[in-house]
Amino acid sequence: MTTHSHDHAPVAAAPAASVEPGSVGLVQPRRVELFAPPAELELVSGARLGPVTVQYETYGQLNAARDNAILICHALSGDAHAAGRHAPEEREPGWWDSAIGPGKAFDTDEHFVICSNFLAGCKGTTGPSSPDPATGRPWGIRFPMVTIRDMVSVQRGLIDHLGIPRLLAVAGGSMGGMQALEWAVSCPDRVEAIIPIATTWRLSAQGIAFNEVGRQAIYADPNWNQGDYYAGPSPDAGLAIARMIGHITYLSDQSMHRKFGRNLQGKSNYDYSFATEFQVESYLRHQGEKFIQRFDANSYLYITKAMDYFNLGEGFPSLRASLGRLRAKSLLIGFSSDWLFPPAEMRAIANALRGNGADVTYLEIHSDAGHDAFLLETAGITRAIRPFLRCAHTELRRRREVSL
Amino acid sequence: MTTHSHDHAPVAAAPAASVEPGSVGLVQPRRVELFAPPAELELVSGARLGPVTVQYETYGQLNAARDNAILICHALSGDAHAAGRHAPEEREPGWWDSAIGPGKAFDTDEHFVICSNFLAGCKGTTGPSSPDPATGRPWGIRFPMVTIRDMVSVQRGLIDHLGIPRLLAVAGGSMGGMQALEWAVSCPDRVEAIIPIATTWRLSAQGIAFNEVGRQAIYADPNWNQGDYYAGPSPDAGLAIARMIGHITYLSDQSMHRKFGRNLQGKSNYDYSFATEFQVESYLRHQGEKFIQRFDANSYLYITKAMDYFNLGEGFPSLRASLGRLRAKSLLIGFSSDWLFPPAEMRAIANALRGNGADVTYLEIHSDAGHDAFLLETAGITRAIRPFLRCAHTELRRRREVSL
Repeated sequence: MTTHSHDHAPVAAAPAASVEPGSVGLVQPRRVELFAPPAELELVSGARLGPVTVQYETYGQLNAARDNAILICHALSGDAHAAGRHAPEEREPGWWDSAIGPGKAFDTDEHFVICSNFLAGCKGTTGPSSPDPATGRPWGIRFPMVTIRDMVSVQRGLIDHLGIPRLLAVAGGSMGGMQALEWAVSCPDRVEAIIPIATTWRLSAQGIAFNEVGRQAIYADPNWNQGDYYAGPSPDAGLAIARMIGHITYLSDQSMHRKFGRNLQGKSNYDYSFATEFQVESYLRHQGEKFIQRFDANSYLYITKAMDYFNLGEGFPSLRASLGRLRAKSLLIGFSSDWLFPPAEMRAIANALRGNGADVTYLEIHSDAGHDAFLLETAGITRAIRPFLRCAHTELRRRREVSL
Repeated sequence: MTTHSHDHAPVAAAPAASVEPGSVGLVQPRRVELFAPPAELELVSGARLGPVTVQYETYGQLNAARDNAILICHALSGDAHAAGRHAPEEREPGWWDSAIGPGKAFDTDEHFVICSNFLAGCKGTTGPSSPDPATGRPWGIRFPMVTIRDMVSVQRGLIDHLGIPRLLAVAGGSMGGMQALEWAVSCPDRVEAIIPIATTWRLSAQGIAFNEVGRQAIYADPNWNQGDYYAGPSPDAGLAIARMIGHITYLSDQSMHRKFGRNLQGKSNYDYSFATEFQVESYLRHQGEKFIQRFDANSYLYITKAMDYFNLGEGFPSLRASLGRLRAKSLLIGFSSDWLFPPAEMRAIANALRGNGADVTYLEIHSDAGHDAFLLETAGITRAIRPFLRCAHTELRRRREVSL
């Protein structure tokens, strides 16, 4: 199998001089078309979908043994651009640049790191804003409903395409952690280790509730128009409200207090008006406004539904029983002030795995940064991830030697 | 001063036979007009407002010494109808019927209990849906911004009108607790005791954030029309979303899990569609739909802003210094799973008062009901409130005897 054979763009090696220390440098997004009919992807819902375009990026080099590949899974609003820059003038590097690069948690001197935009996204991978092959017009909400397992199936298609027999690790925070867990459960032979961070084994009632209110805000926007808005104005107001709700859940009460407290926005006295009084109001509005520039409202609907459906325990008498299929070595990381995916849920996974005799490490990092800590507590996660990956790599090699 | 002189309706004594045990029976809402020009209410913002119509109810009898009056303050979506029924066929009794009545926490055999709809409300007291005397048309957002202190000023006007020199107690949960604290701080000579429940001394950044997202949902509804919607369709969609957001914060993760878990709504398998899948989604939508039947969106804006502005510590070097003015005997009640107004904030108030040598009791009730516990944990609050009020009453009488 030839790797990259159907890719639209070659990997661009950045000139060494322009690379910041610890950065993977310039990267080029790549695209591949998978699941072309008649080999469509069979979704959990029973629907079939194909072809599926997958946008992805890679950092570092796949070694000759093809045993150093790590898949990074992104969260709700993320994309395939996890590290480096697309152009020298790009203001912000990829979303997990703090963790991916030479000498970083996911060390690109040693590992071949892959990140792809997930199914139903709006960053290059097929989703509700993509053209429906049957009509040539955007799918809208005629796009089939997808689950975390379906997202993993598409990622497995990409890993097959890249010619990787077994991933060294699958890692991700939040919804990315759900994908890491799903990988270990539904493809136990294809993954050596998983690193689920700030996540859960099933979305809670409160999590579903927050998602539903965000969706209701989108449905209530007249521009949403039952999802058919691609030829007209977008449901920006609704999507911004959904994002603002989300943002409150990503921070903690403490971090909001530390960041904003009751500070006023650019004034020393109240206006006693409906204009912005407090910094925290201004912050939220700004988050909403930024988000609508870069995200598709229908994708937001599909992605939050995929989270809602996520439940590894479904059909099993206990969490422990449901994780019996999980054979990967696991490093679980939780954060003390995360109330969206509370550390107690991570501990429950760790205890269930331990009960099954699995190789599991649970690290709880004390942080007041809330759910967002998975993107911020770089030092803590790096200290845990580097030795874990080294150990996983050694074990993967030993196992291969034994089987030869 | 003649009590009730400007009242629109006399107290209707319910026929004894129709009264349920422990119920105050049939009650009649009352209205009084206060702050008629030129004696307008001077608001914290500097604006003047008058006349102000106040809707209120009373339960039990004011005694000859006029020393058994308790003011109950309601929360965001409450009203003056705290106990009993307006008609025998009324489905639900007043919002705190579990705590007000013969033999209950606020025992109407002993006490004269008053509850009034607060300023800027939409349940009979002057607010943004009331006619602006200058134009005869609803105020909309031309209504002046009000604060918790302004709400208390209107309540003090009512207490003056009722001829009550000193309240035995002011009690309330959530925003009602803010009013109780404000009473003790701004009218220290008019209140013997306060019972702030599940509240805080200042709204946190997270609290402001949730309020702001709710307001943004209302602003984003095209029917809101800058607050001028009284002649046309109401901004129901926006108000429903604001209410849904609020409802998530009133419950706890645990109580949502206990009530709904991941139970499906009227089916045993997923539809994989945007129709309601989970019970918790259906519950939230229902809460939103119920709320728009009975609440005014502009009132929601004004009331959440009043919460935002609430900060007893403002202008003081410490919470303890700011509470130096507070001389009332205090019973503070917090609930372990309340994350909107976490018990730590109640403890901070109690510690500050203790530091000032004030007479304070803090009770933390273990409950998984979240913020809503203040309406649900009746047994626990009753056990604390009854002896506290008895003791406060004894002290009020002793003090009066000493001063005679």
